[in-house]
Amino acid sequence: MKKIINTVGLFGKFQDNSVAEQLARLAEFLRGRELNILIDENTASLVQQSIAPSRPFPVIGKEIDLAIVIGGDGTMLNIARGLAPHQVPLIGVNLGRLGFLTDIPAERMETEIGKILNGDYEIENRLLLQAELKRNGDTIHAAVALNDVIVIKGEIARLIEYETYLDGEFVNSARGDGIIVTSPTGSTAYAMSAGGPILHPTLPAIAVVPICPHTLSNRPIVVSSESVIEVVMTSPTEQRANVTCDGQLNHALKKGDRISVRRAELPVQLLHPAGRNHYDVMRAKLHWGEKF
Amino acid sequence: MKKIINTVGLFGKFQDNSVAEQLARLAEFLRGRELNILIDENTASLVQQSIAPSRPFPVIGKEIDLAIVIGGDGTMLNIARGLAPHQVPLIGVNLGRLGFLTDIPAERMETEIGKILNGDYEIENRLLLQAELKRNGDTIHAAVALNDVIVIKGEIARLIEYETYLDGEFVNSARGDGIIVTSPTGSTAYAMSAGGPILHPTLPAIAVVPICPHTLSNRPIVVSSESVIEVVMTSPTEQRANVTCDGQLNHALKKGDRISVRRAELPVQLLHPAGRNHYDVMRAKLHWGEKF
Amino acid sequence: MKKIINTVGLFGKFQDNSVAEQLARLAEFLRGRELNILIDENTASLVQQSIAPSRPFPVIGKEIDLAIVIGGDGTMLNIARGLAPHQVPLIGVNLGRLGFLTDIPAERMETEIGKILNGDYEIENRLLLQAELKRNGDTIHAAVALNDVIVIKGEIARLIEYETYLDGEFVNSARGDGIIVTSPTGSTAYAMSAGGPILHPTLPAIAVVPICPHTLSNRPIVVSSESVIEVVMTSPTEQRANVTCDGQLNHALKKGDRISVRRAELPVQLLHPAGRNHYDVMRAKLHWGEKF
Amino acid sequence: MKKIINTVGLFGKFQDNSVAEQLARLAEFLRGRELNILIDENTASLVQQSIAPSRPFPVIGKEIDLAIVIGGDGTMLNIARGLAPHQVPLIGVNLGRLGFLTDIPAERMETEIGKILNGDYEIENRLLLQAELKRNGDTIHAAVALNDVIVIKGEIARLIEYETYLDGEFVNSARGDGIIVTSPTGSTAYAMSAGGPILHPTLPAIAVVPICPHTLSNRPIVVSSESVIEVVMTSPTEQRANVTCDGQLNHALKKGDRISVRRAELPVQLLHPAGRNHYDVMRAKLHWGEKF
Repeated sequence: MKKIINTVGLFGKFQDNSVAEQLARLAEFLRGRELNILIDENTASLVQQSIAPSRPFPVIGKEIDLAIVIGGDGTMLNIARGLAPHQVPLIGVNLGRLGFLTDIPAERMETEIGKILNGDYEIENRLLLQAELKRNGDTIHAAVALNDVIVIKGEIARLIEYETYLDGEFVNSARGDGIIVTSPTGSTAYAMSAGGPILHPTLPAIAVVPICPHTLSNRPIVVSSESVIEVVMTSPTEQRANVTCDGQLNHALKKGDRISVRRAELPVQLLHPAGRNHYDVMRAKLHWGEKF
Repeated sequence: MKKIINTVGLFGKFQDNSVAEQLARLAEFLRGRELNILIDENTASLVQQSIAPSRPFPVIGKEIDLAIVIGGDGTMLNIARGLAPHQVPLIGVNLGRLGFLTDIPAERMETEIGKILNGDYEIENRLLLQAELKRNGDTIHAAVALNDVIVIKGEIARLIEYETYLDGEFVNSARGDGIIVTSPTGSTAYAMSAGGPILHPTLPAIAVVPICPHTLSNRPIVVSSESVIEVVMTSPTEQRANVTCDGQLNHALKKGDRISVRRAELPVQLLHPAGRNHYDVMRAKLHWGEKF
Repeated sequence: MKKIINTVGLFGKFQDNSVAEQLARLAEFLRGRELNILIDENTASLVQQSIAPSRPFPVIGKEIDLAIVIGGDGTMLNIARGLAPHQVPLIGVNLGRLGFLTDIPAERMETEIGKILNGDYEIENRLLLQAELKRNGDTIHAAVALNDVIVIKGEIARLIEYETYLDGEFVNSARGDGIIVTSPTGSTAYAMSAGGPILHPTLPAIAVVPICPHTLSNRPIVVSSESVIEVVMTSPTEQRANVTCDGQLNHALKKGDRISVRRAELPVQLLHPAGRNHYDVMRAKLHWGEKF
Repeated sequence: MKKIINTVGLFGKFQDNSVAEQLARLAEFLRGRELNILIDENTASLVQQSIAPSRPFPVIGKEIDLAIVIGGDGTMLNIARGLAPHQVPLIGVNLGRLGFLTDIPAERMETEIGKILNGDYEIENRLLLQAELKRNGDTIHAAVALNDVIVIKGEIARLIEYETYLDGEFVNSARGDGIIVTSPTGSTAYAMSAGGPILHPTLPAIAVVPICPHTLSNRPIVVSSESVIEVVMTSPTEQRANVTCDGQLNHALKKGDRISVRRAELPVQLLHPAGRNHYDVMRAKLHWGEKF
């Protein structure tokens, strides 16, 4: 983020008009710092009075130098994925419930964002995952994920079967509810509930975490972010299964489908006020012990 | 099983005609012991030539003194649930893959079943679960389960929220993929993949096992089989959820639905040759260590 | 606890004189209710002024109808074990940090104990474990435990090997840091850190929980409290191992030693104010979710 | 390993004379390929007849271009640590029980080692850990570890307390049996029993895995191998604790002691026959599923 910030894009939680007040407060603050403001079109529709010119989400990335997202981690995931091609850095503001990605409380947003605008910030590059779904040799679907790419059973109480490959090398075949391929960012989301480890947010690694595996020794594996992980469906198509990116983009799977996951070319850039301790959020959210 | 065995019912794996040969072998063996044989109507349809008079599943239980099931644990679950009201004891024969319930290999079935028919057997009472689904105060659905009653998300990557009660006492509220209420029999099935403990098959207890819980301290709880466990759905109906008994009987859930699970009045009776060590099956299936 | 309470025994945390004030307050309260008071001799030595006649711990149980313990769960374990032969019911008062056994906060002790003395109480029978250490056929050591009997490695970074038997039936042989045989009371103590399930406090069951087992499928097993669990040491004596009851009574083990654990004849009786929800303590200590 | 191999060092399992035959076979094979052979002095003492000139372990590394170790993973850990300063590559041969590091069975050693000597090999760099123990500001002890650096309780049934720091940033304070700082190599050893993830052997990462943590949300963390992990002892010295490297080098800890772990400057180089699939060993040892 060497370039000067002229234009800031504002983004609010999807279909939640409780962010209107915070957006107005934030716009006023930014205008006081003589910055241009654009607002995401979907977000603008939540706010009764106009607070800034709006742009459709697919194009706003071209015009902004910084994105501020008010909402939860789910909102942040969506906006970050969409802005990734434009390499716009993001700041996450929460609405009361601390998030792993939205770690600035709305009450203190002027102070914290002020620090960042004064140049007192840290950039954190978070790796994005690039997923491709191949059927009969063709790529029929592709998407990126900031958290995780999940292959999961589509029917109640029916295990799926799949094989896992790492850089073309056979790892194992397994049965269970499914498998999570997670970035460091996603390692504190669904993968943690499934028993996966916590990856440091900037570690160049990807974790592969089985969900309720039938074989108890099928444990999470952590591999380089330069690796390609492939999951090949071996259970019959009738036993429905799906692949989902960040829990938001789903696609039904057939027997023989090959889901490949690798690091996307460009990362997501998060901005934090300088001097922040990443583990403060962890301790708060996971009830870890403070200093004795 | 004090009464004399006159009539034996035969049951084969659903829609799998590979059991035909074993069924014929078994019928011949039983006839050699001067026993009457009846065959389940569904099973009979798998076998080309008639090996015994057939009866529809719902009524066969009235006429038989013993059921022999050839297939896997899934088949056994179905037959055992259906015969429970008639208190017919069951013997399970597997087709090569050792089961927790079908622990007699087909190759040795004459020897092992012979022992049992000679009176050299042990009876194991396995508790059945009785599930009821209550909506607005009415019981709209009821079913029994030999393994487990599972409340589970119906949509990919969307947690469900629920509250748990034990004998009317609030236990906790939680978010996750769902919750398993398991009998001792089910404790080595799906509940084990979800991190639950192994309950001794005749322990009068029920385990409550969360599936990928959001809160990491939401651990399996084991309670008396005299207790009533209730799960109350608190997530919005739009976030689909289901209840399923033994993974075979499903029902969609709405917000406010109350799933209560208690011990069914009658157990399932399994017969084993005398002198069997229950943990032999465990060690074989879980790759546990043999004596040093 | 049908009999009338005439004499109350007071017990404080071992070697911690911060309980003196609470003990004095409690004595005053009890005297106000015209009860006789005796104080444990060890506890009395912590208190500067005499607040009641004292008795040595080994004999005080004969003279009291009720024991009130001020301290943490560790203190409660000690006192409960010692009083078990006298079948004296216990009340646990904590000094600020909520305990699983000491669930009455000192601030509210008069109110809560008052309720109990008014007859408004619930009795909870907690099973005690009886451990015996057999060497060459002789019982060389015996002790009771309210929480757990643990067989554990005595040397850093050296696994021990052992076999487990249930009612004489071989369960498995295993290698690891050790094994915990826990009562329901102990299931929320060390066994929980080792991955064991939570047993309802009055469930007549015992859990067997491996500690860092080498074989990942060596999972916790829950068995009837009528069962006898035996652990037989198979690793060489040079690889030191110990058995410990409630983490307080240790004994070194040799190859071939046989540790048998069964339910002790008499339980420990805990008194709680009526209407208490056992899971309130769980939710507070484990950060479980409250009602949505 | 660009340089030509002239001299091969032979190493056998410590105090186990069953390796004598394999060592002789191996020496004959190597001599047939016109290579010089040196044998480790400790190993030589196990073999009745002399099979090659011997050298003390501390100096043998200077004269050899390749080390062949016959034994288990424990032997390999010792030899690899000792040879690390000389950057001698190693080949591991097992005596019947497949090891993660000793993956060539003795029966096939001539074939497999022949391939490697023909230049048909892969080099795998395994990171070593460098541990330092600091007391009152001074480094009083330092050691390397190929598997793990473990801080662990020294007394039965008494938790230790410690704080963890990552690159000087406070992570958390915790209570439990201890904490494992593991390399990728160690991730399939003790750390796996404690619930840690499997790190790919060449991933530049270190995992921090709590052992039976009191707080259930204290989960394994994976960080960059460029990070410095520090564990600071906060429990009183009377509650004994130890630090151990690869389970073989122990040191008692005091309150305030600071154990810092980082990547050692030089890695350990393992040689494997080309075309080997790393996960073959995993599948065999962990009973993972083969291709369906």
